[in-house]
Amino acid sequence: MSGEFAAIEAIRARLPGPSRSGEVWIGDDAAVLACGSDPDRGRWLLLAADTVVAGVHADLGVTGLDDLGWKAMAASVSDIAAMGGEAGHAVITVAGPPGTRLDRLYEGVAAAAEAFGCPVVGGDLTNAGDTVVTAAVTGYCSGEPVRRSGARPGDLIWVTGPLGASAAGLRLLRSGRAEEPAPGQRPGCGGSGDAELEAVRAHARPRPQLAAGRAARACGATAMIDVSDGLVADLGHVADQSGVGFRLDRVPVHQAATLEEALGGGEDFALVFCAPASAAVAATFAGLVTPVAIGRCTADPAERTLAGQPVTARGWEHEW
Amino acid sequence: MSGEFAAIEAIRARLPGPSRSGEVWIGDDAAVLACGSDPDRGRWLLLAADTVVAGVHADLGVTGLDDLGWKAMAASVSDIAAMGGEAGHAVITVAGPPGTRLDRLYEGVAAAAEAFGCPVVGGDLTNAGDTVVTAAVTGYCSGEPVRRSGARPGDLIWVTGPLGASAAGLRLLRSGRAEEPAPGQRPGCGGSGDAELEAVRAHARPRPQLAAGRAARACGATAMIDVSDGLVADLGHVADQSGVGFRLDRVPVHQAATLEEALGGGEDFALVFCAPASAAVAATFAGLVTPVAIGRCTADPAERTLAGQPVTARGWEHEW
Repeated sequence: MSGEFAAIEAIRARLPGPSRSGEVWIGDDAAVLACGSDPDRGRWLLLAADTVVAGVHADLGVTGLDDLGWKAMAASVSDIAAMGGEAGHAVITVAGPPGTRLDRLYEGVAAAAEAFGCPVVGGDLTNAGDTVVTAAVTGYCSGEPVRRSGARPGDLIWVTGPLGASAAGLRLLRSGRAEEPAPGQRPGCGGSGDAELEAVRAHARPRPQLAAGRAARACGATAMIDVSDGLVADLGHVADQSGVGFRLDRVPVHQAATLEEALGGGEDFALVFCAPASAAVAATFAGLVTPVAIGRCTADPAERTLAGQPVTARGWEHEW
Repeated sequence: MSGEFAAIEAIRARLPGPSRSGEVWIGDDAAVLACGSDPDRGRWLLLAADTVVAGVHADLGVTGLDDLGWKAMAASVSDIAAMGGEAGHAVITVAGPPGTRLDRLYEGVAAAAEAFGCPVVGGDLTNAGDTVVTAAVTGYCSGEPVRRSGARPGDLIWVTGPLGASAAGLRLLRSGRAEEPAPGQRPGCGGSGDAELEAVRAHARPRPQLAAGRAARACGATAMIDVSDGLVADLGHVADQSGVGFRLDRVPVHQAATLEEALGGGEDFALVFCAPASAAVAATFAGLVTPVAIGRCTADPAERTLAGQPVTARGWEHEW
């Protein structure tokens, strides 16, 4: 076993699958569970968890412990967004060395909980050498959640915003070219400085797109995922699980980012979704982010191209 | 901030409390949440998470990675047991160095999931220097869960089994006096060797007491907690949150354990509960473990004694 995705597949093979019709267990953004005793009422419980590690998911030389707490929340809530759900509640566990500034860390957790409407209701504290924060979150979906596996040949592929901002933000912070803005500080209008500030903010305080996820579901999205590992890797999961290929025409690149960052940079937490060409996407998203069509699903699962050139899965993958 | 419990209190003060009547957020074994859109139907969703760290919660020199996985599941499911609930589903996140034997770790997770009736439905894998396993679990409760805060002066205090086995098992393993039994190997009948084997098993593969927790709830338990940090520390949480004291007559000590291990050793995952003296405890537990009355709640919150002598909170507490 060497890669994260192979490891997940091996774990999945070892564990039993859903016992109730309509449930989704391992292998999607969030698990879909019958909510209580009455699944027929069409309301599903979603459950997801993500772990962030100081030095791996965040460089504490350039962002704060509060940002690490925020990121743990964002990563998990984004999994709920990627099912088209609404956020429920979170439990947070923190492992860290004695002396860890828990007050700082929970400042970020609390700010994220409020921003995403996902209150923290419990958790655990324990000592470890590394600082490891896990957020497990519930969510709800009235009606069928959007899985990774429903894309069909001919579906258009959409993203809910320009990509690469988070990776660009990290680059800018590490180069010393930018500093993390104070919580109240917002980008102004226009100029590359504003784009850079926006990128830094996207890296330090990424925002899951709950409303966009629900809009995608409402317009008939057939498959959806959040960009947590990188567009090509994440769209690859959709293609793998749906048994389709993809032909991308163009990818919206954040103003501060490179194409490489847009294709392979993770943690943008934009959503990528597929929908029949007839879907009234723009109308459904009225008042929200404007999604951009970037290509089309194809019948050949081996076809994965951008502007006619093959793209190979790149993006973040942990080693096992 | 120096102690775990003070740190939890500081975190609790920083975060908002429940918005819906009947919900319980931070500060009990598990959070109690309105289940879906219809809390009035009297079915509550429980949510809890625990993290175990190699070298902190488990000595990988004497127990296996599979046991670490099992323990993460056991600790979280025990929180559901301590509310009187039934287990729902689990999400597991693992942070660890490349080369971690995930197959071995998930063997223990899968065995626990099956043993406790709590299937694993998702999770996350990430690299870190330490091996850190988090289990977040849901549970359900039809009717009011048993909180820590309901004990009243005069209530009898019960435990659902002899204490100290897990601490004794660790001591025996570390001394080289005992080895971990193979999964199929069970203690025989009688003899100190059997007690030692049982203690080792209790350390390596602790079993949350879901059925006992439900029985305690059914017989009218006013407060309940699982022994995860140590009897005196955990009963102290109940006393603190209920505003009562306690007067213990005697404590059932596991045959392989010392009194010190029974009072301060954590991770036994026995349940301690309080119930009015009139409660038909024995009848309700028919066919399950036989709980033992160990003392009584008193009106003076400062009174915490065993056989007339003050007992101070000892037990596991992480440093912050």
